[in-house]
Amino acid sequence: MKKVLIANRGEIALRILRAARELGIKTVVAHSTADEKSLPVLLADEAICIGPPPSGQSYLNIPNILSAAIVTGADAIHPGYGFLAENATFAEMCREHGITFIGPTPENMKALGDKATARKVAREAGVPTVPGTDELSSLEEAKRAAQEIGYPVILKASAGGGGRGMRVVHTEEELERAVLQAQEEARAAFGNPAVYLEKYIEEPKHIEIQVLGDGENVIHLWERDCSIQRRHQKLLEEAPSLLPEETRRAIAEAARRLAEHVGYVSAGTMEFLVDKEGNFYFIEMNTRIQVEHPVTEMITGIDLVQAQFRIAQGEKLWLKQEEIQVRGHAIEVRVNAEDPEKGFRPSIGKVETLLFPGGPGVRVDSHLYTGYQIPPHYDSLIAKIIVWAPTREEAIRRMERALSETVIEGPGLKTTIPFHQKVLQNAFFRRGAVYTNFVARRMEM
Amino acid sequence: MKKVLIANRGEIALRILRAARELGIKTVVAHSTADEKSLPVLLADEAICIGPPPSGQSYLNIPNILSAAIVTGADAIHPGYGFLAENATFAEMCREHGITFIGPTPENMKALGDKATARKVAREAGVPTVPGTDELSSLEEAKRAAQEIGYPVILKASAGGGGRGMRVVHTEEELERAVLQAQEEARAAFGNPAVYLEKYIEEPKHIEIQVLGDGENVIHLWERDCSIQRRHQKLLEEAPSLLPEETRRAIAEAARRLAEHVGYVSAGTMEFLVDKEGNFYFIEMNTRIQVEHPVTEMITGIDLVQAQFRIAQGEKLWLKQEEIQVRGHAIEVRVNAEDPEKGFRPSIGKVETLLFPGGPGVRVDSHLYTGYQIPPHYDSLIAKIIVWAPTREEAIRRMERALSETVIEGPGLKTTIPFHQKVLQNAFFRRGAVYTNFVARRMEM
Repeated sequence: MKKVLIANRGEIALRILRAARELGIKTVVAHSTADEKSLPVLLADEAICIGPPPSGQSYLNIPNILSAAIVTGADAIHPGYGFLAENATFAEMCREHGITFIGPTPENMKALGDKATARKVAREAGVPTVPGTDELSSLEEAKRAAQEIGYPVILKASAGGGGRGMRVVHTEEELERAVLQAQEEARAAFGNPAVYLEKYIEEPKHIEIQVLGDGENVIHLWERDCSIQRRHQKLLEEAPSLLPEETRRAIAEAARRLAEHVGYVSAGTMEFLVDKEGNFYFIEMNTRIQVEHPVTEMITGIDLVQAQFRIAQGEKLWLKQEEIQVRGHAIEVRVNAEDPEKGFRPSIGKVETLLFPGGPGVRVDSHLYTGYQIPPHYDSLIAKIIVWAPTREEAIRRMERALSETVIEGPGLKTTIPFHQKVLQNAFFRRGAVYTNFVARRMEM
Repeated sequence: MKKVLIANRGEIALRILRAARELGIKTVVAHSTADEKSLPVLLADEAICIGPPPSGQSYLNIPNILSAAIVTGADAIHPGYGFLAENATFAEMCREHGITFIGPTPENMKALGDKATARKVAREAGVPTVPGTDELSSLEEAKRAAQEIGYPVILKASAGGGGRGMRVVHTEEELERAVLQAQEEARAAFGNPAVYLEKYIEEPKHIEIQVLGDGENVIHLWERDCSIQRRHQKLLEEAPSLLPEETRRAIAEAARRLAEHVGYVSAGTMEFLVDKEGNFYFIEMNTRIQVEHPVTEMITGIDLVQAQFRIAQGEKLWLKQEEIQVRGHAIEVRVNAEDPEKGFRPSIGKVETLLFPGGPGVRVDSHLYTGYQIPPHYDSLIAKIIVWAPTREEAIRRMERALSETVIEGPGLKTTIPFHQKVLQNAFFRRGAVYTNFVARRMEM
């Protein structure tokens, strides 16, 4: 591999550029017209414009991206996350054009990229999923299923998402009314009254396992706790979790087994919900590098993006499971250009004053520079601040220190740093009482 | 300990501030009038002016510093490195005023701070020093001593330093003439013809051992290789060294024993020369934190400045020797505001464009910010860039990547970054053939 086209933007484009450069691979950054003055473009060996915003005309424009790779002589494409990263068709087209797609195979994506298929594959591999039904055809069926699964259960609209049509049911007495209400809401929201039923996991932790596979063998790099979320958007992640050793091992081994079951290639993440008894349920797989991958890098010392490059070049796994050693604790905060005091609404602008934290145990992944105008077309992530320390308590204090010295200012520009400072000070967070409802319940938002 | 006065400036003042903040200790930065807009001053909880430049009137002004501590209610002083860090009188005066001096005891400094005394103490503790004589009284004595020590030997002026009066002698035939020449040069340079003789160590490595002591027990944190020097100024440091395991252990254990012999308290460093056969010779001790301490922090995960604080508060060592685990490889480059193309002459100015490297395995310790005017009164260190990677080869490539994305620009401002880039590309450096004469011999400077 001599030259890679980076088909992404922002901090992840820079992250990929850094990995490639350290491996001696030349970089071409494919960028939209809105990103022509972005830091990855300025630092790349070459840059090529692939169209204007919105992303459909550039970062999601497969013909433009493939053409860009061909005209610049790139022999590989790294898709980053989002955009085309989990698009099996794109991965297949790369293959057809003789360009190495840095990520899993199209077959991996098909087996694990779709939620319903992935759950089926998980069950085949003996990995627990959240118990549930298909579409319910009668109240009697709902009652039978709920009894079998055990209360509480949750009713969900077959056609929908985003919380609409959802009803948590704690006893059989409530069930009939709840089914009727859920059906009514589902009909109103999606034009389809069909609902199904799942075990309701109360105050779960969102735990995900990082895996690396070479098509034959898979190793896991332990877990990340990503329970601090707002409307299913992760805000702060840490590794390792505070789960008991035995539970951590069981989940990690289940994820490894599932990835090995499908002959997984490259870096990937298995997401699980974990209840208070330590029962865990596979929910989905992300067949790509993730925003929060640095916390795993910090505790294991393994460069995951370099690993993606090496695996894509055909290298077999150079590490055995028992060689993966976890040291200390890492926390990442996602700094978004959003105003946490105004419902996290986007709040972009020009970066006029910029000071990132430094010193021991601090890592910054950001495409910002002084004078940079944040474009309005893309997601609001502007920096990831990651800390490492020997213990969780020290990592929390280090993150507080790091955020106290961070300055990202400009007219109209707001960031989520004040939100993160509140999370870090929260007594529940500090003692590790973090569940996916933490933000809604403990942050009064 | 509630509040610490930081009696230093630049990057080390910021380093100490960060450690204190993470420990929940309030910070007061004592600064000169020239440093009132410096980053540590801007970030501190409090700042207090202790006088104008030059340093004699401020950073070396003991009454002003003690007064500053008293009026701000600081119960401790951290001296950093340089200035008053190794001044036993200052440490004693702190003690007399009931202020905790964060560093070794005055007794430690007296036993190990002076070169001649330290060599004597080392010999008592069974740690080898460079074999040599006192002042020579005759040519016969010189011959006898040289034969005993073994050629090559070096003649040095008793009164001098800086290379004048020095003569390397390889055989007895050369000795007589060399003694006469050295005496003549010494007389001319220092008004005193006295010379002495030492074993000449050819192409030594400069290896130093980091120790931490609590007055009873001492642990070592392994070594740093600081062979890349120019005129005895370190430029690039790395850890671990490439010495054989057995040699590394022997030197580290000797340093630990020597520190324990004097009941050493706090962080300190023992410096050694190591010849090509792996013989090592203690040369001196630095009874303070050192500029290059981050490379040790990167490979051990131990925060040395926090350790200084904890020990100063009376905490006994919380780590046993066998718990110190080395992971990977770290390199630090000292970015100085000097022009390497013009004999490293100081080349300061205003920082107009600033971009520090980020991403995995990169640490930056710097007091620079965009718009900062570097004052002309102090040493030229403006940033330390430190990288970590699993292997030395990967660390070198990571440092190259990090330097390639670093921008420190302003009118008239030059830095040593281009020099470091040349070192990193040098084939001798890359294969670890580094000795204290590396810069003179391999860098054509």
